[in-house]
Amino acid sequence: MRSAITEADRAEFRVEGDWTQARRHRIRWSECDMHAHVNHTAYLVLFEDLRVAWWLCCGGSFGPGEPGPAVIHFDVRYLKAAGFDDEVLLTQRTPSFRRSSFVHEYGMWRRGDGLVCSARAVCVLVRSGSGEKTAIPPEVRRAMLEVDGAKDESGG
Amino acid sequence: MRSAITEADRAEFRVEGDWTQARRHRIRWSECDMHAHVNHTAYLVLFEDLRVAWWLCCGGSFGPGEPGPAVIHFDVRYLKAAGFDDEVLLTQRTPSFRRSSFVHEYGMWRRGDGLVCSARAVCVLVRSGSGEKTAIPPEVRRAMLEVDGAKDESGG
Amino acid sequence: MRSAITEADRAEFRVEGDWTQARRHRIRWSECDMHAHVNHTAYLVLFEDLRVAWWLCCGGSFGPGEPGPAVIHFDVRYLKAAGFDDEVLLTQRTPSFRRSSFVHEYGMWRRGDGLVCSARAVCVLVRSGSGEKTAIPPEVRRAMLEVDGAKDESGG
Amino acid sequence: MRSAITEADRAEFRVEGDWTQARRHRIRWSECDMHAHVNHTAYLVLFEDLRVAWWLCCGGSFGPGEPGPAVIHFDVRYLKAAGFDDEVLLTQRTPSFRRSSFVHEYGMWRRGDGLVCSARAVCVLVRSGSGEKTAIPPEVRRAMLEVDGAKDESGG
Repeated sequence: MRSAITEADRAEFRVEGDWTQARRHRIRWSECDMHAHVNHTAYLVLFEDLRVAWWLCCGGSFGPGEPGPAVIHFDVRYLKAAGFDDEVLLTQRTPSFRRSSFVHEYGMWRRGDGLVCSARAVCVLVRSGSGEKTAIPPEVRRAMLEVDGAKDESGG
Repeated sequence: MRSAITEADRAEFRVEGDWTQARRHRIRWSECDMHAHVNHTAYLVLFEDLRVAWWLCCGGSFGPGEPGPAVIHFDVRYLKAAGFDDEVLLTQRTPSFRRSSFVHEYGMWRRGDGLVCSARAVCVLVRSGSGEKTAIPPEVRRAMLEVDGAKDESGG
Repeated sequence: MRSAITEADRAEFRVEGDWTQARRHRIRWSECDMHAHVNHTAYLVLFEDLRVAWWLCCGGSFGPGEPGPAVIHFDVRYLKAAGFDDEVLLTQRTPSFRRSSFVHEYGMWRRGDGLVCSARAVCVLVRSGSGEKTAIPPEVRRAMLEVDGAKDESGG
Repeated sequence: MRSAITEADRAEFRVEGDWTQARRHRIRWSECDMHAHVNHTAYLVLFEDLRVAWWLCCGGSFGPGEPGPAVIHFDVRYLKAAGFDDEVLLTQRTPSFRRSSFVHEYGMWRRGDGLVCSARAVCVLVRSGSGEKTAIPPEVRRAMLEVDGAKDESGG
């Protein structure tokens, strides 16, 4: 696994564990609700940004007829309430994959405060348009193994 | 539990189980993504609508300084892809509660097709502004017991 | 023009003028921002719902390769701040059209309070996929003339 | 006016005119609709980010009871359709202000392609909570004059 967390990030945002993608973010006005907290869905959109960037980086695309990741299970824990203008670090990693699905883990860490939200998604690869399940392309499998250090659980 | 599902709803949307709140919805343009599917976060906003209506109906409010529900855990399964203009039924129930938290279950059922998405949320009651955890008010507990048929797991 | 405003609506929401589409709405939690007001973009999404319903009703579709309306100019005035749980009436009409474009007007009226937001959109018909401008199909022109009472400004 | 546009930006995004704030952005999955275009409301949220950052930079805040900008008029022209993963530059300037209101202009420029969207907003300063109109604080007026080169149209 090629960690994307520098020692400076780790200290600044109190990040724990290793993550293969990290991105700084400042909480937007549009992400907050009437109680001045980040709406529970806004975290998922931020994690989606990481997933989309990762997919493009792995050589995937989102064109018509192309296979793309569709979330089939999302489990998210909101540990602390993030608020407007908070400085956070968003992190992502890919612990494992199967023939046509993979697992992603996400975290949001607040500056000086550590983990505020953690999540786990199971995604399946489906062909846009037809919606049929497809196998993970070889170049994406290779990226998952080499860059993400993901465990191949596709069986044998 | 006072079921909100009529026999007509049950047949039309192939609903299973009992639910204390139900609302028809037609998938909006703004809920769909580039792959013509409902975005995974749009389901959560629709379920939030049910939670908010339920909270107001239980005698709760969302005013400054008032206790309101904050999601601390959300687990959602996307079984089928919903699409633009689909006619769906959204359902909610409250299986159990504790001193300052409760569990909600949600479903989205498509006309003639049954369950497309199911979810379970754990919410905690926090005072808006201070963010301190507060006990569920007596009138809300009563509504949970009588209307929702929720199980009191607050211990003894 | 076939007005969609009943006398009861007109009195309840203090609606002025005639409108060919009207829909009741209750402001959602997700439409409000940190200052407890409806975010300025949420009005546009609600007006979009009217436009989409109108387009389907005129015989239009949103399928791949089909012509659909794209907004090219939007002018919106926020007269009063709408807030959470407000009961509002959304209205729409089509004052005029040209060969491949049309004008829409929208209003949001609050119960007992009258107009809170008014807007005017110019939309052009573009073929989804190619993005090429297309003429308004004859059946849509007919609906605009007969149902909406729109003025044909396509010249001669 | 202190221009925020470098010569490199100007060439890369074919920016015209002077702008006091500029920010690079890459179009997100969540900003696109079923027709693979940026939804017409997503532009407004991106411009809101600029307005919010500008307000904080001018010494304003968004706390309870504090004056903050509320949009009362928005006029936006969609010249070209922006799409997923497009690299754009967002720009903002403040041409003028009055006692309790100001005008903002915004632009979205695509890499190698120039202007795709332009907008003009009129904002009024209102006290959060009470909603009463308030005069622009002296330090914000000073920033508007010195940094933005805004024209004082407050009369008197």
